[in-house]
Amino acid sequence: MTNSPLATPKKTIGLTSDNIAGVSPQILQHLIEFSAGDATPYGNDELSLQLDRKMSELFETDVAVVLVPTGTAANSLCLAAMSPAWGAVLCHPNSHINNDECGAPEFFSNGVKLLTIDGDDSKINPVKLAQRATLKIGDVHTVQPAVVSVTQATETGSVYTLDELRAIGDVCKSHNLKYHMDGARFANAVDALGCTPAEMTWKAGVDALSFGATKNGAFGVEVIVLFDTSLKNEIEYRRKRAGHLMSKMRFLSTQIDAYITDNLWLTNAQHANAMATKLREGISAIEGVELLHPSKTNIVFCKMSPITIATLHEHGFEFLSNRWGDGVARLVTNFATKAEDIDAFIAVLAASNK
Amino acid sequence: MTNSPLATPKKTIGLTSDNIAGVSPQILQHLIEFSAGDATPYGNDELSLQLDRKMSELFETDVAVVLVPTGTAANSLCLAAMSPAWGAVLCHPNSHINNDECGAPEFFSNGVKLLTIDGDDSKINPVKLAQRATLKIGDVHTVQPAVVSVTQATETGSVYTLDELRAIGDVCKSHNLKYHMDGARFANAVDALGCTPAEMTWKAGVDALSFGATKNGAFGVEVIVLFDTSLKNEIEYRRKRAGHLMSKMRFLSTQIDAYITDNLWLTNAQHANAMATKLREGISAIEGVELLHPSKTNIVFCKMSPITIATLHEHGFEFLSNRWGDGVARLVTNFATKAEDIDAFIAVLAASNK
Amino acid sequence: MTNSPLATPKKTIGLTSDNIAGVSPQILQHLIEFSAGDATPYGNDELSLQLDRKMSELFETDVAVVLVPTGTAANSLCLAAMSPAWGAVLCHPNSHINNDECGAPEFFSNGVKLLTIDGDDSKINPVKLAQRATLKIGDVHTVQPAVVSVTQATETGSVYTLDELRAIGDVCKSHNLKYHMDGARFANAVDALGCTPAEMTWKAGVDALSFGATKNGAFGVEVIVLFDTSLKNEIEYRRKRAGHLMSKMRFLSTQIDAYITDNLWLTNAQHANAMATKLREGISAIEGVELLHPSKTNIVFCKMSPITIATLHEHGFEFLSNRWGDGVARLVTNFATKAEDIDAFIAVLAASNK
Amino acid sequence: MTNSPLATPKKTIGLTSDNIAGVSPQILQHLIEFSAGDATPYGNDELSLQLDRKMSELFETDVAVVLVPTGTAANSLCLAAMSPAWGAVLCHPNSHINNDECGAPEFFSNGVKLLTIDGDDSKINPVKLAQRATLKIGDVHTVQPAVVSVTQATETGSVYTLDELRAIGDVCKSHNLKYHMDGARFANAVDALGCTPAEMTWKAGVDALSFGATKNGAFGVEVIVLFDTSLKNEIEYRRKRAGHLMSKMRFLSTQIDAYITDNLWLTNAQHANAMATKLREGISAIEGVELLHPSKTNIVFCKMSPITIATLHEHGFEFLSNRWGDGVARLVTNFATKAEDIDAFIAVLAASNK
Repeated sequence: MTNSPLATPKKTIGLTSDNIAGVSPQILQHLIEFSAGDATPYGNDELSLQLDRKMSELFETDVAVVLVPTGTAANSLCLAAMSPAWGAVLCHPNSHINNDECGAPEFFSNGVKLLTIDGDDSKINPVKLAQRATLKIGDVHTVQPAVVSVTQATETGSVYTLDELRAIGDVCKSHNLKYHMDGARFANAVDALGCTPAEMTWKAGVDALSFGATKNGAFGVEVIVLFDTSLKNEIEYRRKRAGHLMSKMRFLSTQIDAYITDNLWLTNAQHANAMATKLREGISAIEGVELLHPSKTNIVFCKMSPITIATLHEHGFEFLSNRWGDGVARLVTNFATKAEDIDAFIAVLAASNK
Repeated sequence: MTNSPLATPKKTIGLTSDNIAGVSPQILQHLIEFSAGDATPYGNDELSLQLDRKMSELFETDVAVVLVPTGTAANSLCLAAMSPAWGAVLCHPNSHINNDECGAPEFFSNGVKLLTIDGDDSKINPVKLAQRATLKIGDVHTVQPAVVSVTQATETGSVYTLDELRAIGDVCKSHNLKYHMDGARFANAVDALGCTPAEMTWKAGVDALSFGATKNGAFGVEVIVLFDTSLKNEIEYRRKRAGHLMSKMRFLSTQIDAYITDNLWLTNAQHANAMATKLREGISAIEGVELLHPSKTNIVFCKMSPITIATLHEHGFEFLSNRWGDGVARLVTNFATKAEDIDAFIAVLAASNK
Repeated sequence: MTNSPLATPKKTIGLTSDNIAGVSPQILQHLIEFSAGDATPYGNDELSLQLDRKMSELFETDVAVVLVPTGTAANSLCLAAMSPAWGAVLCHPNSHINNDECGAPEFFSNGVKLLTIDGDDSKINPVKLAQRATLKIGDVHTVQPAVVSVTQATETGSVYTLDELRAIGDVCKSHNLKYHMDGARFANAVDALGCTPAEMTWKAGVDALSFGATKNGAFGVEVIVLFDTSLKNEIEYRRKRAGHLMSKMRFLSTQIDAYITDNLWLTNAQHANAMATKLREGISAIEGVELLHPSKTNIVFCKMSPITIATLHEHGFEFLSNRWGDGVARLVTNFATKAEDIDAFIAVLAASNK
Repeated sequence: MTNSPLATPKKTIGLTSDNIAGVSPQILQHLIEFSAGDATPYGNDELSLQLDRKMSELFETDVAVVLVPTGTAANSLCLAAMSPAWGAVLCHPNSHINNDECGAPEFFSNGVKLLTIDGDDSKINPVKLAQRATLKIGDVHTVQPAVVSVTQATETGSVYTLDELRAIGDVCKSHNLKYHMDGARFANAVDALGCTPAEMTWKAGVDALSFGATKNGAFGVEVIVLFDTSLKNEIEYRRKRAGHLMSKMRFLSTQIDAYITDNLWLTNAQHANAMATKLREGISAIEGVELLHPSKTNIVFCKMSPITIATLHEHGFEFLSNRWGDGVARLVTNFATKAEDIDAFIAVLAASNK
């Protein structure tokens, strides 16, 4: 065992994704406290048993929670529990469940079909959704719409407004669809909207939420938050069957307990968002670099020249580029991003575009 | 967040299962070291990338490893990758995959059938295995044997001898079956046999191993060790699709890195086994309590009177009873079990059976 | 295209299975009548639309019916619709769904587990069923009993009495289990018991029946008869999704229409049963041949010497032997079996055992 | 049982779909010949055993065939056998597998994802296909392209040219993709191209074909034709498991035997195509009715006024309209369509548009 953290060499500054970051000190500390001594396994320890209540307080309504180690599991378990085998999940073409989970929703549900509904800024257009939700209903030759899944914040950093979320909720109610929210970056969206968790979820009609923590300071844990608490039983059996019931559950629970204590979840996201705003402001002042996609959260897309990209990489800035089009770069900040690193990034960017 | 670890109250002494224990200090320490700073996600950090090599050294042959958070995932991913959709897994009726995973092997594989092969002491009888492996081969009306899965150590604490493992390996070779080992308590078995990891696996013909760490001091991680390295690609896609690819993979890798450093895995198991031996020796000296199932590892089954069970519980000893028959108690030790607690247990037991 | 039917050469007399037979003239005739002209596809033709009503008359209660081309599909669709993904089907070890469908129930249901309940004469013992139905209920680590499936008549020719069926129905009611009957040889059982279809099904608590026709004179069609009509919607979507919705559905419907007209279904079975009774009577009079398994239907198991088996084969009698034990022969009669062939069989058998 | 065929009343003339038609007399006659007498079940009768050879002659190469009752089953079994669980099927957005099978491909394959590739006239554009086939290859977060499925003829009546089929075959070869053809209207396409079955399949690189018969005169049977004969074993087990192995297989085989005898398959399609050509010629001479979608086969799309549609319906002509846009009608001819009915249709159409 080497004694020094190896991670990536110090001089690089990572803007690749929010999952390159380490862990919030508060979460680490809480884990340490609970790391010794016995505890009842499988979620029957005292700490785990308190989470339904604590999350209910956070969401200002009775919720049931189910913890899992990854967001893919959280999303897929919700979707599988909310759709019959012959159902369809309506989602945006850009959504994580559609592109980045290697077919996990299809696997967990034994072949539910994802039908994509377009819309600007990676957001489902509620009018198009309503149109699609009425097509071929009752036609045995076609999968039947069962669930709508929105990503909040989206993969391109945009955020559904409360009005937009409610409009989708209305469509769900009218057409008897379940409503799921992939909240891998839930906290960033709450901060961007300046609303409460309740407003952004059940008050808009959401039935089930994947409440993300991993990208925002945890080791690896996501919470399925069920506003429709009748789903809990089904999801718990499916969780076990999918290998996602951790025996030493306390180690997921401690992460979440620390995460929702003293608003750590929100504080972390506020920092990440502020760093992205700093980036956007810096970029917008530089001619030759174009901001793409409206974003209010911790993801920034922009277009720059190949030389600029190369120069930034030379200076140790790591980020993805050219995957979403020539010269398109994606910059992602996180709870631990340093303001001086953003300043340095902007300085190099400005110098390269003089 | 409470400041004091809640766990179970101090006076209780847990012999319920090895997953009630906390974490080895070495594993915690290593996690702390790696908890800050950036790292490439999804297993592409430096530490994770070293694990193939380190595990190859431990097993004295080239292996490929895939890390997952639970044993259920490790077992099911192996079985699903090793069997066609219309295949069968041959296992003992007492096996964990057959009884305690809520159908996870069937789920991961889209309906592979588990066919049980009897044998004493929770161990597959190689002769019966060979008989079953020849039934209805090529008959399209019947699932076709594809994989043999052994549990080492077994659910009742017994251990396959190297000869027995090799006999099963020979059947696998003769009948073109893949060979899987559920090693949730692998370390306990290696200690009990006094052999090398190599002897107990690939040298006996094993193709894939679920190498357990959670029950033996980790937070929650198991390693799929592939001696047939050609399976790695298939398993990695299936892992992602099942939601078991952790983005911050370093936090699984640090656990395993610490676990295999300085033989921690073996040291922990040796302690647990020694405590169980102490238990067995104590019990065997007491009239009125009967040791059941031959065991060489950290699980002890015995039969005692209802009064004795009640008395032990009153004294704070926690363990499962009456699930496997009237008066049958299961006692499980772990890496953190204290010798004085075993002494105390024996003392109460003896007093209650005078 | 050859002009002469090839089938098997004339001199052989088939007792291999009831699916070696051809088709009832009445069913053929009805098919011919409907073979030309247009009809609305997918079951919306006039004939198909009448079947719910006609089958309701036969069963003396409102039923919903779903037609499929095979018994495996009928069984598996019922089981998949009646069990959650994490459920278990309780059935006899000898049942067709357990042994002869290559894991179809597991496939259709995405991995439901079949748990076997023993009992004499290939029949589930209701007491053992009740015991099993209470094990580990609510335990998330274990698949949860969801459906009981009985085979009537059984694979060895025996028949559940009405009392036995009702006893199982009572267990189902007490333990909130669905009740399925695999009636591939339903007609043979009705004849053997001398009861009504209603008495043998919903009056005993059965929720869903696979009503067999193929083995009893049809080309290839089975009817899912739903006494719990709320299952119809679910099963119709699953049928389509499994490729079992025939576009020219009228050609399944004509078979069933003819089959249930003028009691053809019962007449055919009565003949088959009578031929088997003739066989049993003949055999029982011969020393050296032992009747095995009590049977009241068209399947006869008996034990004979290798020489006798060889002699019978030489005389053109075809049947399976040695699959269920040394010298064990299975003889199956069908709606077209001729009395003179049975006489001839008995004559050879007697001569060989003088 | 009524004595008169009920079907639809005589005066209506059906252009709704090719599956409203009855059965070719030759196929009926052959079935009658084989309807009595014994035959070995499950495809081991003499007739069934000849089909590999007979189909090999038709396709001028060694093929393996697997018979199933529906096209959905044929397509889905091929796709499931040709793709890993984490694979993707590339197909046109308009394809039957994507829209009209209620997710059957996803079900059979346990969640394979269908990725759509655009192109004119319901045909995959080979250039776009090649582009998509190179995206994210080896990226564990994304399903991996495994199979290309083309529909020949397409759902809108168009036909891939041999050059186009070969171009797609080249992409498959370059990118290690399997090549499937949904030939529900295979015969219509062969007629339209004036080519051989060989040219349209394996000579263009096709690995597996769903060879349709039901829409073209059979009762209900489709043939999986495997040019990659190594797939047969896998598909046969999957067929059984999906409930598609008919016990009285001879009744599928007789249909196919008659269908490929004396080129019945082609003669039937030629008639259907000729009737459609007659329709197209008639329509193109009428002002006010617009032919849509280029078609060379038995499907004709055209646009007409609501009054015209109503008038045609009043005259007994049945067809689907308004499903693909306002005023869009789909007219489908079949092997039994009568020339005088087409003449009558054109006459009414002309009168309504004078």
